[in-house]
Amino acid sequence: MAEPKQPTDALTDPAPPPEGGIADPGLGVDQAMVEALDANDRRRARELFQALHYADAADLLERLSPEDRARLVNVVRDEMPPEVLSELDETVRDHVIEHMGVEDLAAALVELDSDDALDVVEELPAAEQQQVLEAIPAGERTLIEEGLTYPEESAGRLMQREVVTVPAHWTVGETIDYMRMSADSEKTTLPEQFYDLFVVDPAHRPVGTIPLSQLLRTRRPVGVTEIMEPEMKLIPVTTDQEEVAFVFRQRDLTSAPVVDDAGRLVGAITIDDVVDVIHEESEEDIMLMGGVKADDLYRATIDTTRSRSTWLLVNLATAFLAATVIGLFDATIEQMVALAILMPIVASMGGNAGTQALTVTVRALATKELTPTNALRVIGKEVLVGVLNGTLFAVLVGCVAWLWFGNPMLGVVIGAAMIVNMAVAGLAGTTIPLTLARVGVDPAVASGVFLTTVTDVVGFFVFLGLAALVLM
Amino acid sequence: MAEPKQPTDALTDPAPPPEGGIADPGLGVDQAMVEALDANDRRRARELFQALHYADAADLLERLSPEDRARLVNVVRDEMPPEVLSELDETVRDHVIEHMGVEDLAAALVELDSDDALDVVEELPAAEQQQVLEAIPAGERTLIEEGLTYPEESAGRLMQREVVTVPAHWTVGETIDYMRMSADSEKTTLPEQFYDLFVVDPAHRPVGTIPLSQLLRTRRPVGVTEIMEPEMKLIPVTTDQEEVAFVFRQRDLTSAPVVDDAGRLVGAITIDDVVDVIHEESEEDIMLMGGVKADDLYRATIDTTRSRSTWLLVNLATAFLAATVIGLFDATIEQMVALAILMPIVASMGGNAGTQALTVTVRALATKELTPTNALRVIGKEVLVGVLNGTLFAVLVGCVAWLWFGNPMLGVVIGAAMIVNMAVAGLAGTTIPLTLARVGVDPAVASGVFLTTVTDVVGFFVFLGLAALVLM
Repeated sequence: MAEPKQPTDALTDPAPPPEGGIADPGLGVDQAMVEALDANDRRRARELFQALHYADAADLLERLSPEDRARLVNVVRDEMPPEVLSELDETVRDHVIEHMGVEDLAAALVELDSDDALDVVEELPAAEQQQVLEAIPAGERTLIEEGLTYPEESAGRLMQREVVTVPAHWTVGETIDYMRMSADSEKTTLPEQFYDLFVVDPAHRPVGTIPLSQLLRTRRPVGVTEIMEPEMKLIPVTTDQEEVAFVFRQRDLTSAPVVDDAGRLVGAITIDDVVDVIHEESEEDIMLMGGVKADDLYRATIDTTRSRSTWLLVNLATAFLAATVIGLFDATIEQMVALAILMPIVASMGGNAGTQALTVTVRALATKELTPTNALRVIGKEVLVGVLNGTLFAVLVGCVAWLWFGNPMLGVVIGAAMIVNMAVAGLAGTTIPLTLARVGVDPAVASGVFLTTVTDVVGFFVFLGLAALVLM
Repeated sequence: MAEPKQPTDALTDPAPPPEGGIADPGLGVDQAMVEALDANDRRRARELFQALHYADAADLLERLSPEDRARLVNVVRDEMPPEVLSELDETVRDHVIEHMGVEDLAAALVELDSDDALDVVEELPAAEQQQVLEAIPAGERTLIEEGLTYPEESAGRLMQREVVTVPAHWTVGETIDYMRMSADSEKTTLPEQFYDLFVVDPAHRPVGTIPLSQLLRTRRPVGVTEIMEPEMKLIPVTTDQEEVAFVFRQRDLTSAPVVDDAGRLVGAITIDDVVDVIHEESEEDIMLMGGVKADDLYRATIDTTRSRSTWLLVNLATAFLAATVIGLFDATIEQMVALAILMPIVASMGGNAGTQALTVTVRALATKELTPTNALRVIGKEVLVGVLNGTLFAVLVGCVAWLWFGNPMLGVVIGAAMIVNMAVAGLAGTTIPLTLARVGVDPAVASGVFLTTVTDVVGFFVFLGLAALVLM
């Protein structure tokens, strides 16, 4: 690929864009900042920080060591761009807030949109939350406190309270005049950015949406009901954010009205909030499948150690279960040590085949592509794939075992064990997440442990058991 | 959570929304459709299909068995809503297109926006692509053919060609009049939906963006340059789509101008396209880490079997490597069969601890949170976490081994092996993906195999080797 000519973007990237491409965070700044902090050059550090786009400033804070981060926050605390706070990873944000103090934090929060401020406040410890809320003026405080009454990770937490609504009897001209007027007035209620207007009935229930691009291409005398789209997805305020993200992606929405129990419009969710949710949710799934918490990278060593040990403990229990199965056949292994050499192969191939089936199933559940309509078909397919690949690798491994230890029956035994274990892997890889989902457990979390328990136990038992029957 | 009152949404959901929430795909339709197809009731099948929102129609096609899908396509082929095609999963789309035929496909493509049509055409086999392009009228065909000249998964493939541009000397009033006029004219060049206008210089280079919500709140005589935002991220047309998604998420963009080598505006990427990319890319990473291809769910059994066997073959090679290491110590195992029973525990705990470190590292690389600035710190942390958890579990496993086999030295040996293997796991879990990323290999793909090879080989070697030294 030819290196694209780099457009200049001087206002957002103070360092010349390095070769990494348009998204490169600009590592030159990191080093310059550390040098400025080491030299205790507060003016230089402040200059470097202020020149950054807020997203880049947040990234810089994340990459710095905790000590450098604390020093930098102490330098810039009274002029921290509020958007930096909402961009920060949770652990880093706690750290930054700790060094900013309540006063500076409250001052920054007031400048944010209600949904972004809520985002920061909801994650504070209860005591600090109270302190910060008290330092915020009444108007903004009420919006944030109302937001906190909605369930965590719900549409209510995600939505902007500032929405542009239009009564159904207005024309395009009246709507545009109204917007110009409220923009000019001191106490504007218009949100900073919006993509759609909502037409509401007298009870403030949404009856249609008007994309701005539609409003702009329509002549002034036309009534808003003539150009509105009456088809819309109303989002109940308690809807889970994952569900919200699904609908946005499914329906290619840019914004959607949020309604309360009575169907009244209480806010709007815009796609930029949803982008973050999509990213967070898939990040969470990947992390859970790997046995770690989403926030792991920036945690202190001791927190990481503690949080990961839970998962390792569960794994240890299953490893002991597998060891117990092997222990049943100690006499057999004593007579034929080749079994000890080959047995990890059977378990490992079963585990890998099972993980493949599991990954597909867990994702298909998350994207709602796996439903009662096709569940049986998918299970059947996975078992069949297990049998087919099992047979293929049974022949391969059987021949190698025969040649290695000069015993054709050993080859037959390991081959048979592999076919059984890989078929079981296909069955377990699909039915375990399906069952977990049915009983309401997130299949991304626990499926992996159950699966390897099954493939280890079945693998060792069938291989060693067959060997005891056939070879002894 | 209280069940939210379900808003009616009669036009998009023909079946009453079931309890699953707002995003439920409505399984009632599946069964009704299968019944209609079984009864060969073409009118009923057609009615059911036409009543669905295009996204739900696509989901229905994906969930149906291949036979039912073929029957349904034959019924609705001449009135297939074009948007259904761009929503379909690739394997299913191939299947649907095969049954639609070139004529009906070309007719559907003409109705799509240029980027969506390109999306469908780019994935057709070369011969079919040619046929379909020939059946499309010249104007639309040129746009699609131009799109095909950009690299796959680049900004050029993602962008819409239809962009609203405004010369820098215009006022807000002139801009609105222009839009109203072109909307009224027969041959409108306005895209269906847009969120920003681009102000361009005489050489058609973008000099600023105007969000529509800004335009609407400004009085007519104001010049466009007064309200435009001159800060913007220009996206070179060859930029990789993953990079594009990163910038959108990072900068909270809703649309961005795409420029050619000379800096001229050639198109615009809007956030709805990026949402799909974010979803696809994380989906791809999850699948790759699980050893499967992204498109696995809907593939035929034989294709799935073949595609997964590659990954299993690689795993088999590493399993044999581990077996060879065990083979080095066959005499030791023969003397003390407890070693064969316990050895999978050492390997499995190392593998799990390593996977935790690996997952965090792979994601941090993908989100650009891991950079030369903090790489050494992260590696150091992971090794330390490995040593700490290794020590914790060494004590636990050591005691169990001692009690189980009545041999305190066996407990010491397995404990020491676990500490070493889990420290190595932390080191390998970070350095393997960092190295792969540096040499340009996607760390999500291959890291897992390398990691378990290391933790198996080191685990078996250290445990059995120490046992041979100390216990024999």
